[in-house]
Amino acid sequence: MLADNDTAEMQTFCETLHPATVAEALADEYSSEEVWRILSQTNIANQALIFEYFPIDWQVKLVEGTGRQHMARLIEQMSHDDRADLLRRLNPRVAESLLRLVDEADRRDIATLVKYPENSAGALMTTDYAWLPAHITAAEALDRLRCQAPDKETIYYVYVLDDQRHLLGVVSLRDLILADRQTVLSDLMEKEVVRVRATDDPEHVAQEIARYDLLAIPVVDEENRLVGIITHDDVMDVVVQEATEDVHRLGAVGPIAENYLEANFLTVWRKRVIWLACLFVAELFTFTAMAHFEDEIAKIVVLSLFIPLCISTGGNSGSQAATLIIRAMALGQVTVGDWWRVLRHELLMGLALGCALGAIGFVRAFFTPQSTLNPPSQSIIVEPLQFSWVIAQAVCIICVWGTLVGSMLPIIFKRIHVDPGVASSPFVATFVDVTGIVFYFSIAKMYLPF
Amino acid sequence: MLADNDTAEMQTFCETLHPATVAEALADEYSSEEVWRILSQTNIANQALIFEYFPIDWQVKLVEGTGRQHMARLIEQMSHDDRADLLRRLNPRVAESLLRLVDEADRRDIATLVKYPENSAGALMTTDYAWLPAHITAAEALDRLRCQAPDKETIYYVYVLDDQRHLLGVVSLRDLILADRQTVLSDLMEKEVVRVRATDDPEHVAQEIARYDLLAIPVVDEENRLVGIITHDDVMDVVVQEATEDVHRLGAVGPIAENYLEANFLTVWRKRVIWLACLFVAELFTFTAMAHFEDEIAKIVVLSLFIPLCISTGGNSGSQAATLIIRAMALGQVTVGDWWRVLRHELLMGLALGCALGAIGFVRAFFTPQSTLNPPSQSIIVEPLQFSWVIAQAVCIICVWGTLVGSMLPIIFKRIHVDPGVASSPFVATFVDVTGIVFYFSIAKMYLPF
Repeated sequence: MLADNDTAEMQTFCETLHPATVAEALADEYSSEEVWRILSQTNIANQALIFEYFPIDWQVKLVEGTGRQHMARLIEQMSHDDRADLLRRLNPRVAESLLRLVDEADRRDIATLVKYPENSAGALMTTDYAWLPAHITAAEALDRLRCQAPDKETIYYVYVLDDQRHLLGVVSLRDLILADRQTVLSDLMEKEVVRVRATDDPEHVAQEIARYDLLAIPVVDEENRLVGIITHDDVMDVVVQEATEDVHRLGAVGPIAENYLEANFLTVWRKRVIWLACLFVAELFTFTAMAHFEDEIAKIVVLSLFIPLCISTGGNSGSQAATLIIRAMALGQVTVGDWWRVLRHELLMGLALGCALGAIGFVRAFFTPQSTLNPPSQSIIVEPLQFSWVIAQAVCIICVWGTLVGSMLPIIFKRIHVDPGVASSPFVATFVDVTGIVFYFSIAKMYLPF
Repeated sequence: MLADNDTAEMQTFCETLHPATVAEALADEYSSEEVWRILSQTNIANQALIFEYFPIDWQVKLVEGTGRQHMARLIEQMSHDDRADLLRRLNPRVAESLLRLVDEADRRDIATLVKYPENSAGALMTTDYAWLPAHITAAEALDRLRCQAPDKETIYYVYVLDDQRHLLGVVSLRDLILADRQTVLSDLMEKEVVRVRATDDPEHVAQEIARYDLLAIPVVDEENRLVGIITHDDVMDVVVQEATEDVHRLGAVGPIAENYLEANFLTVWRKRVIWLACLFVAELFTFTAMAHFEDEIAKIVVLSLFIPLCISTGGNSGSQAATLIIRAMALGQVTVGDWWRVLRHELLMGLALGCALGAIGFVRAFFTPQSTLNPPSQSIIVEPLQFSWVIAQAVCIICVWGTLVGSMLPIIFKRIHVDPGVASSPFVATFVDVTGIVFYFSIAKMYLPF
């Protein structure tokens, strides 16, 4: 297509396929220069539609590949939330020079949106919502919507505002169409509107939209004035992204937003090695802890053989508890205020789990061959029953300890305003490993004849 | 409200609040009998609306609490996907006796939906979509929609079908309203419709809806006949649920669908203890592996002090790789066919990570105090440099090994049709723990003077 310089084909390509498909195909196969050559065959509105479907890194790259004037026209056509996102990512000098070329109204709109911090409802919202006053009839409303519609992100929800833009109600397009033509909007509208604040957490927005099965949710300021709306598709992206972040944190990876196979090797290495190195350094304390008990190991070697088993028990039970609590907090089922209920619940659960695992440990330890338990070179005689009791008790206590640490750390982190996801399984496991060694040897010293 | 038997207040409660809010309030505070007493104050259509927002377990419980006749009327009013879900969960005998009371058309519709397996697009879809023939004008279309609308799940997308219900195109309500009244639908409709098959995976449906920012996606059979649609809100639930399942698996919990604080203690204990016990039993092999090297430990005690460090390195790097691959597969970024690219990528990555960690390990091991390295009771003299080299090499190799196992296991599981999420971090970590011990001592035996 490009080799033949077949402009007709480029135009057909841009205009018949879904913009998402066009963007994917272009991003996969062409350089930024080639993308612009192909896009320039279609009108600017369609260019904007396709441009919005490029991943954000690609959008930034594309800005560099075209003239400022052209980019400014494209920005005027883009949907309000997507262009605010883009400008937030651009080098501030580039963004400013572009903004100077964008027309007055759009410039002001962008300035309003860009000021919201990246992790807030304000950053997700768009300002091109459909709105109407309360006193008009359904028939007038439909006529006015026909004029507004081409510019609006969605016209399926129409917000009813007063002169000061206070949110009075919402009417769905479905109700408008079904209603008698002469009904006044104020009689037709739903007055109990589910709404969020611009400063709210994106997760909260996602929960509200999912809870009430909404297409869009209105965003208001402190005085209940409508400042924007957030549509279901943007929320879906948030949900997927948050889930990926949660999962990545659980697996000890700094969040990697890029596609796995396409991400840059060095960037990914850096994100992975930082986590692994931190955990490794923390895990070095297992050596320090064990060095304290070197004499005991030298005297009863069999003790060291059960160490991986005991500490992994703590790690697993800790991961399990941490995962449950982190996910329950992400879904809004558990809040910091529930810490006492969680603590009680997990203490009981830890005991119930620990007893089960301790029992298995007891049986296995009891069947340790005599040659392993009391090798000829060993001066101390270890009783099988006594030894099994040590293992069972250590497994049980470490399991309870792991469960408690795993359930409480995420809550504590949330309380001190650190993302609870940071208290991920590997983090908890490492912490429990070190402390588990101390528990293990302390119990051994209590029962065995050193 | 109930104590006073204030029927007026019950009615207001049911009719002014959002059905989601009513359902939440009722489920939190009342018994199934009380719920029915309150619901009976509003009309059957509204009862159905509220009923759909109850969690599915609650719905099943509520079925038992009311008469069969009443429940049959309610089922007739429920949205088609929700009632199919409910009937799939009911005791087959109860479901059958209910179905006998439901009217003919609804019964046939339910029978069609119930036959799809639970984890398919068919099970998510609803049959109450809006559709029109291709030859009518926009004005006629709006008139017909006005008649269809009250029953349909969504009228924002209208599907254009021929006599045999083949899917010809889709028109959005927005386009219908904007179009000239005389335009014929066949000229107005989008012919390139994104569609899914009834047998497709729910994850695939979610990806398609997210990719094209759709409100609903049509579901067709093998002959391209429309059999239903899936709406964005049902997909959102799927996305959240899948993410929770993924996260839970990563944390070694059997998927627990219930709310954390409300779930039954015994059920949760069972789900948690099964995983922990399996991992514990698998981890018992660490003891078996170490028992093989008991003599070496007895000769050089310091070797045992580095074991937790070395095996946790394998566990962490394995978790990390497994998490990345499992998530990338869930998002459709990596397929089984990519195994060779993944293998090459992770081999390089593992080496790069292993060298970094090995270097840290080398430094730490080099600074092991002489009294720990060569205690008076030990007959063998261990050289610090030689010992550090053993640790560095073991850490590096175990890290590469963990990365490889973590990245390949999910792909292998997917290949043999086991959910890749089962190859979760704790599973990988346990596997790598056991093999890591063997690597560690083999390397030690190569370099140290036993």
